[in-house]
Amino acid sequence: MGVVLNLEGGKREASIKDLIDLTASDMGEVNKLILSKAGSDVEMIPEVANHLISSGGKRLRPMLTLAAARMFGYAGAGHVKLATSVEFMHTATLLHDDVVDESDLRRGKKTARMIWGNQASVLVGDFLLGQAFRMMVDVGSLDALDILSTAASIIAEGEVMQLAAAKNLETTEDEYFSVIKAKTAALFSAAAEVGPVIAGAGRTDRAALRSYGTNLGLAFQLIDDALDYGGDSKKLGKNVGDDFREGKVTLPVILCYRRGTAAERAFWKGAIEDNQVDDVALERAMSLMVRHGAIADTIGRARHFGEIARDALAPLAATPQKSALLDVIDFCISRVV
Amino acid sequence: MGVVLNLEGGKREASIKDLIDLTASDMGEVNKLILSKAGSDVEMIPEVANHLISSGGKRLRPMLTLAAARMFGYAGAGHVKLATSVEFMHTATLLHDDVVDESDLRRGKKTARMIWGNQASVLVGDFLLGQAFRMMVDVGSLDALDILSTAASIIAEGEVMQLAAAKNLETTEDEYFSVIKAKTAALFSAAAEVGPVIAGAGRTDRAALRSYGTNLGLAFQLIDDALDYGGDSKKLGKNVGDDFREGKVTLPVILCYRRGTAAERAFWKGAIEDNQVDDVALERAMSLMVRHGAIADTIGRARHFGEIARDALAPLAATPQKSALLDVIDFCISRVV
Repeated sequence: MGVVLNLEGGKREASIKDLIDLTASDMGEVNKLILSKAGSDVEMIPEVANHLISSGGKRLRPMLTLAAARMFGYAGAGHVKLATSVEFMHTATLLHDDVVDESDLRRGKKTARMIWGNQASVLVGDFLLGQAFRMMVDVGSLDALDILSTAASIIAEGEVMQLAAAKNLETTEDEYFSVIKAKTAALFSAAAEVGPVIAGAGRTDRAALRSYGTNLGLAFQLIDDALDYGGDSKKLGKNVGDDFREGKVTLPVILCYRRGTAAERAFWKGAIEDNQVDDVALERAMSLMVRHGAIADTIGRARHFGEIARDALAPLAATPQKSALLDVIDFCISRVV
Repeated sequence: MGVVLNLEGGKREASIKDLIDLTASDMGEVNKLILSKAGSDVEMIPEVANHLISSGGKRLRPMLTLAAARMFGYAGAGHVKLATSVEFMHTATLLHDDVVDESDLRRGKKTARMIWGNQASVLVGDFLLGQAFRMMVDVGSLDALDILSTAASIIAEGEVMQLAAAKNLETTEDEYFSVIKAKTAALFSAAAEVGPVIAGAGRTDRAALRSYGTNLGLAFQLIDDALDYGGDSKKLGKNVGDDFREGKVTLPVILCYRRGTAAERAFWKGAIEDNQVDDVALERAMSLMVRHGAIADTIGRARHFGEIARDALAPLAATPQKSALLDVIDFCISRVV
């Protein structure tokens, strides 16, 4: 069992190494299945799909599914299909997100829509979603299907919510949490919960993993939003200030805006609503974030959810998987340190 | 049992009246479920969804599912959910199609993307697809889930195929059939097959309805493509020449191009590839269609598939549902007369 990191003490760098090691063999199967199920006689499909799939995401979500299944003694092969489904759902969301956000770069590479167009990105996303459902059906667990199809609806609902609230600086912190709970945490939650489900674990264990996933997902998104105003672009796979330039109303902005003076609020209106987002504006935004403790408090919120995720797993027996899943919490939060 | 129409004799206008009457009570439930499952606290979702849902489509596909289930004695409530799922899959496809095709009008109304933007259309489509899967899961038939999730993948694959072949006048008739089989016939086929599946009917009955659906779908799409060069825009819900103006390479165009002189082929290149699609060009296109019998032969191909659909149901016992489903074939084809 790995040593749980004490972030404050900083004795050991938080890492997902244990999770990677524990799931390495299963992830080999997932990676094979990804390639095979993204295949099609229609050439454009594997081209577009593999562009994003091979762009070096961490594949954290499928690893959660695999570890959560093994944690409860699952010995079949269905977890590999469910994990691949989870990754396809995530990939489909990214393809559609890049169209919706009109993004040019993702993980430091041109987005699929910049190379093959919005049209191909929408349709290949649809294809991957269809393939995800086929794999789930193939596994045959109606409970897992229920969890993942519900997540698919909720994710889309969250994306629409985000779209409706776009560039609205009056968005409250609560509204922001509703959005990230739907668009990010729902898939983490489903990815984690289908592990015990397929392993035939009971309600308590399912609820534990579901809660772990939800809160890990919230922490993950909060840190992602914080990193955009001060992270290391190599670690992040996107550039500092991307959210700012796209006028996204994330928690750091919400906190800064609500805590700001009238003059500062006018600055935020100009930036977010009127697109005044040059480098000078970004520098001012970042200095306001420091002045109002907006980044520190965003990270604080992330720690709060990280702790809930940790406590969600507390009653479970000590296993290598449990230890690895706890490490993931610290890893997600320490990305920002 | 309804009298089967003899199109050549023209004694009675082909109609889906029997199908509408037979499924009226079930369709009442479907319509309620559509409203309820397109609902969301995120206001934009029901707005966008209902704009398209209430725009007066015939709801042919869900009626197929309902009739096919009743035909085999189904007495439960699951067919309503499956029929609603089928309609949601169709609606999601239309929302995404309008984005991909950059369409301004659908069924004589502004498309959702013209009112709420491409972004909302993509995301609400995703939401409806998620809701469709949730309803299927709720019914609990893994066979029905398999059929419908496979159809979802195939439809997306067909759309990508169409995109890859866009504006390519060298598209062969075979390639065209591959596209419409995937993008249109797959959903008709799945809609029809899940009826006997949920009713617990055997392999032969499932195969009969599957084949009926596939071939009806092919006929339907062929007639749709023919109508674009000479239908009645009120019946059609779109304007004559829309496909031409969008540069779509449908069967009438393929036949005209392949049968044309060098000068005519140059005309088609200018129209389809270089977007020379004004009213004068449309008139020339339509006169070339007449000269080469392209519309007549497109309708001929539709009749061919209509006959296969008819024979697919031939071995089944005479029931009001069977008669109504046979009427649908004539109705689809007679739209053009």
